[in-house]
Amino acid sequence: MWLKFSKMHGIGNDFVVVDLVTQHANIRPERVAELADRNFGIGFDQLLVVEKPTRPDVDFQYRIFNADGSEVENCGNGARCFARFVYDQNLTGKRDIRVETASGIMELHLTDDHQVTVDMGKPELTPAHIPFEANAFATEYTIDVPEVGIINLGAVSMGNPHAVIRVDDVDTAPVESWGPAVESCAAFPNKVNVGFMQIVSPHHIRLRVFERGSGETLACGTGACAAVVSGQLRGWLSQGVKVSLPGGELMIDWDGEGAVKMTGPAERVFEGKVNL
Amino acid sequence: MWLKFSKMHGIGNDFVVVDLVTQHANIRPERVAELADRNFGIGFDQLLVVEKPTRPDVDFQYRIFNADGSEVENCGNGARCFARFVYDQNLTGKRDIRVETASGIMELHLTDDHQVTVDMGKPELTPAHIPFEANAFATEYTIDVPEVGIINLGAVSMGNPHAVIRVDDVDTAPVESWGPAVESCAAFPNKVNVGFMQIVSPHHIRLRVFERGSGETLACGTGACAAVVSGQLRGWLSQGVKVSLPGGELMIDWDGEGAVKMTGPAERVFEGKVNL
Repeated sequence: MWLKFSKMHGIGNDFVVVDLVTQHANIRPERVAELADRNFGIGFDQLLVVEKPTRPDVDFQYRIFNADGSEVENCGNGARCFARFVYDQNLTGKRDIRVETASGIMELHLTDDHQVTVDMGKPELTPAHIPFEANAFATEYTIDVPEVGIINLGAVSMGNPHAVIRVDDVDTAPVESWGPAVESCAAFPNKVNVGFMQIVSPHHIRLRVFERGSGETLACGTGACAAVVSGQLRGWLSQGVKVSLPGGELMIDWDGEGAVKMTGPAERVFEGKVNL
Repeated sequence: MWLKFSKMHGIGNDFVVVDLVTQHANIRPERVAELADRNFGIGFDQLLVVEKPTRPDVDFQYRIFNADGSEVENCGNGARCFARFVYDQNLTGKRDIRVETASGIMELHLTDDHQVTVDMGKPELTPAHIPFEANAFATEYTIDVPEVGIINLGAVSMGNPHAVIRVDDVDTAPVESWGPAVESCAAFPNKVNVGFMQIVSPHHIRLRVFERGSGETLACGTGACAAVVSGQLRGWLSQGVKVSLPGGELMIDWDGEGAVKMTGPAERVFEGKVNL
C-alpha cells in the first residue's frame, strides 16, 4: 500500500508529514523507526500525523512520533510544519487552526508572509516544577557544576527544562564540554536542555542549544522560548526578540506574563510516496 | 518544474536516482549540494543520473554526483542501484546492461534473485600504480605507521587505493585510531582506504572500512573487493567469498587473475518528486 507524504523542515528540524484524513494507514512503531533511518529509510527527526479530530471544537488531531518510533508530546518546529501542511493540502481553509495533541489543545496561526505562529504556552518558573533544586525563584541562579565550575544561569521550563547561560560569542561557546556537564548536573533532577545565548541587542540574540539526550541541534524551538524568557527576566532583552539559531531564525514574543508566541518558517522540500 | 526521483540504497550506501531519458532537467552542482543535505534537502550519499547514451554500443550514460555537487567516477553500490532502477522503470528490458561512465564502460547484470552483479575491473597490484611505496610487489607488506607501530597489510587498488589489515574481531578492531593513522601514512602518497578484515572461513569475511576522506562507512564496495583479493593472495580465502559489512552483505568473486565480480542487493525505498 502506497502512503503519500511530504518532507518538510522548520529551520533544519525535519519532518515527514502524513495526511491520515484522506488516507488510511496503520502506524507501527517498528516501521516508523525504519523509515526514520537516513540511509535505509526516508530520514527524519519526527513523523507528524494529521488525523480527524475526536472532538467538535478542534480542526485536527495531531500525533507525533520520534525517530525511535515512540509517540511523544509537542514540538514547536513540527507544529509550524503541521499548520503549513494542512493549509497547503487544502485540508482546511482556516488560517487559525486548533489541534488536539497528546499534551492538550494547541493554537496555530498562518501569517500573511508564509510563516506560522505557535502558542507555546506559559513558561514555568517555579523551581520545583522545572524541576530545579533551588529554595525560591530567582531570575538568575549561581551553581557549581562538576568539571565546569561556578556559573550563572536562568532556569525555565517550556514543558521541558532549560538552563540558559549567557556567553560573549556563541561561535566559541563551550557547547561540547559544558553542555553534557550541565545537562547531567545534580541541580536538575530530570536533566536539562542547555542554551548558550549571546545578546546582540535587546531585540536579537544568537543561540546554540545542547538538547537533553541528543546533543547540539540545528534548531530548538522551546530552547529559543526559554532563552528569551530568561533574557527578559534578567533585564537584557525587550519584548519581541529575533533568535538566530544554527538552522535559521525564529521570532519570539513574550509579554512577561502570558503564553510565549513563536513565529518562524515551515518549508516543504519534496513530495513522496512509500510502501508502508 | 517537478523532477521525479527514486530513493535507493545498496547495503546502506544511499542514492537519489533520476531518469533524464524521459525527463529533462539541468543538474546544477549548487542544487545537488542543497538536495544532498539530510535536514534541509532529500539526503543522499550520491546522486545517480540516467541519460541517453552518446554511442551506439551502450545502453545508457551514467553520471554520478557526490553530495558536494562534484561529478565523480564509479561506485559499486551505486552501480547496482542504477541497474535495478533502469530495469524496474522499464527503461530497458535487458538483464545485461552496458553503461558509459566518466571512467569507461561498465557491465551490469541483474540476477534471477533480484541482486545485481557489477564487473569491478581487474585489481591493480603493482606498488607504483596503487600508489604505495615498495620496491616490488608482495602479497603482504610490513610497514611502520606513526602512532600505530609495525603492522602487516595488503595493498590493492580497485581504481582507488586500499590497505587491508587482518584482525581477530572486527567488533573490537581499532578502526577509529588506526584508520586515520594508516590513511595518512607516508607509504601511501595519495592516502588510502583502510580495511579491517576478520577471516570467518575461507568463504566468509567480516569487514569494516575507514574510507579516505570520510571515515568509517556502512558499505564500501571497492573495499570489499580489495579485501577479498588481498585475502586470496595471502592464502586465507578461496574463490567466492561472502563479505559481511556493517550495512549488509556482498558476494565477491575473483578468479585470481581477471576482473572482480561483486554481487549484492539494490533496494528501492520510496518514490519522490522535487522542485528543481
